[in-house]
Amino acid sequence: MKSEQIVLASRPHGLPSSENFRFEKRETGKLNDNEVLLKTWYISVDPYMRGRMNDVKSYAASFQVDQPIAGGVVAKVIESRSKSFAKGDTVFGMLPWATYCVEKAENLRKVDTQSAPPSYSLGILGMPGLTAYFGMTEIGKPKAGETVVVSGAAGAVGIVAGQIAKIHGSYVVGIAGSDEKCKLLKEQFGFDEAINYKTAKAMRKVIAAVCTKGVDVYYDNVGGEITDAVIDNLNFHSRIVLCGQISLYNSIGIQTGPRIFPLLLTRSILVQGFIVGNYSNHFGEGFAHLTQWVKEGKLKYKETIIHGFDKLPDTFISLFSGKNQGKMLVETE
Amino acid sequence: MKSEQIVLASRPHGLPSSENFRFEKRETGKLNDNEVLLKTWYISVDPYMRGRMNDVKSYAASFQVDQPIAGGVVAKVIESRSKSFAKGDTVFGMLPWATYCVEKAENLRKVDTQSAPPSYSLGILGMPGLTAYFGMTEIGKPKAGETVVVSGAAGAVGIVAGQIAKIHGSYVVGIAGSDEKCKLLKEQFGFDEAINYKTAKAMRKVIAAVCTKGVDVYYDNVGGEITDAVIDNLNFHSRIVLCGQISLYNSIGIQTGPRIFPLLLTRSILVQGFIVGNYSNHFGEGFAHLTQWVKEGKLKYKETIIHGFDKLPDTFISLFSGKNQGKMLVETE
Repeated sequence: MKSEQIVLASRPHGLPSSENFRFEKRETGKLNDNEVLLKTWYISVDPYMRGRMNDVKSYAASFQVDQPIAGGVVAKVIESRSKSFAKGDTVFGMLPWATYCVEKAENLRKVDTQSAPPSYSLGILGMPGLTAYFGMTEIGKPKAGETVVVSGAAGAVGIVAGQIAKIHGSYVVGIAGSDEKCKLLKEQFGFDEAINYKTAKAMRKVIAAVCTKGVDVYYDNVGGEITDAVIDNLNFHSRIVLCGQISLYNSIGIQTGPRIFPLLLTRSILVQGFIVGNYSNHFGEGFAHLTQWVKEGKLKYKETIIHGFDKLPDTFISLFSGKNQGKMLVETE
Repeated sequence: MKSEQIVLASRPHGLPSSENFRFEKRETGKLNDNEVLLKTWYISVDPYMRGRMNDVKSYAASFQVDQPIAGGVVAKVIESRSKSFAKGDTVFGMLPWATYCVEKAENLRKVDTQSAPPSYSLGILGMPGLTAYFGMTEIGKPKAGETVVVSGAAGAVGIVAGQIAKIHGSYVVGIAGSDEKCKLLKEQFGFDEAINYKTAKAMRKVIAAVCTKGVDVYYDNVGGEITDAVIDNLNFHSRIVLCGQISLYNSIGIQTGPRIFPLLLTRSILVQGFIVGNYSNHFGEGFAHLTQWVKEGKLKYKETIIHGFDKLPDTFISLFSGKNQGKMLVETE
């Protein structure tokens, strides 16, 4: 089968550009036993993938130059030599950015297309949803009446994290990058307040004004100066859920900022960095809660779907200027 | 009774100087029911007291200008109108820097002078010992075979924290400010290695060379650039016990340094700020362990005792240039 694929043409220096990606044509190769031939349906673009473009040892292996980018994909089985999957099945896997591919059955998970849209496997019922779930429930542990601030609140993880804090009875404040996103957070996702960091003049004071009892949980997706401003408002015994640092992913070299350890010390603050894989033994539990909440209407969701495989590089790049509302995806057709 | 006392003459700007302190004479006043008259024996000087000299809300109330400095004191009862204490008893309390004082019995704890030197109530069997115990066992949780780094290792807390990690079977590296202190840590306190940060040329590399398997627990008493260098060597799932930041206590304004959240995130690192008071419900347990270990010879201790009440301000100030080995105290006579 002829396939189109996208390889890393060169490692980005700072913000990626389309020159860092290259489209190639290739043959998927023959199907062996226990393999399936897949037609790609939805491809996930996630901020963490930026880190994989650097040649640095981290929790996820680096992408290699001239090799395909890979990430979360939902695909249709169009031919199967596996007992686990039949033609027509929808599957999820960590797969190359390609229109077609051959994959071992053991690396795939069947997607139930009846109970939720299949693309949800890349979002609320997938890695971003589980990330929000475990970060908020295992680290943030929000209590009724506590104040929870979520940065990157209108993103794939933030939008879920904030709603989970609401389910726990907390007062929830989102930080996002446009008035439209802020409106969305309050009107459609039940956030109590939302702050547009791009128009706020003094974030420290704006946060203090909105969080009149201080901040007990900070779910951080962005880092940098927004985080500095939240930290100044943290209460004694508060928790920082260190989930993402998107504002720094394209930094060249190590950025500097205020030294925060003295404040973390005097206020007995917890910071816990994490990746969702740390909780892999509990994915079943997380998945069950998320599915239940979605079914009950307690957890709402939003996707920004871009159409066309050729749009993938630009869609990925646009994550860093906050073009998405909720989960950003590319649908291949 | 005529007493001499030391008041905060003015708030220090940066490193305190003797001008920030003033000696005064006063009468202790009359003894009421349930009070005792005390003759001060040992006075503790502790780095955290610097924070109390600022007019900033923190976990410990600020000292007031023209009012006595106060802190940990061991004293002798010379007159008692309390059933709890008899003349000749030795007691511990949070008391003013004064040669004599009258205090309510309920604020004092009797010191057992038989099982350990009475001054130990200000150190290994007191607040610094409990701080080391809870920070290391409740936050650091060192395991056999793990690598533990302690900064400020030759100080009152560090010297105990490192030995507790040794009791747990870890490989323990101390960071201190002189070759003499490093020798002491290795030869008398069982540290596996010790680094003199004043002569080390590139701390990141020196730590990497000594901690060949990376760092699993960092017990931080100092902050600043030493901490930056340790953080670079932290392992996945490592823990930072955020106990002290002595290198920054005399800073004017907020210092800047590298932004560490991206690294804490990708390595799933825990940071927990704490004060010993957070564990007050478990002081009995901590005290029992420390006492047992001292008795068994597993936990050794060192004090730097300065003689003369008039030496108090200079002794306190000298903490910040690392003049102490182990616990620094002033004996009034």
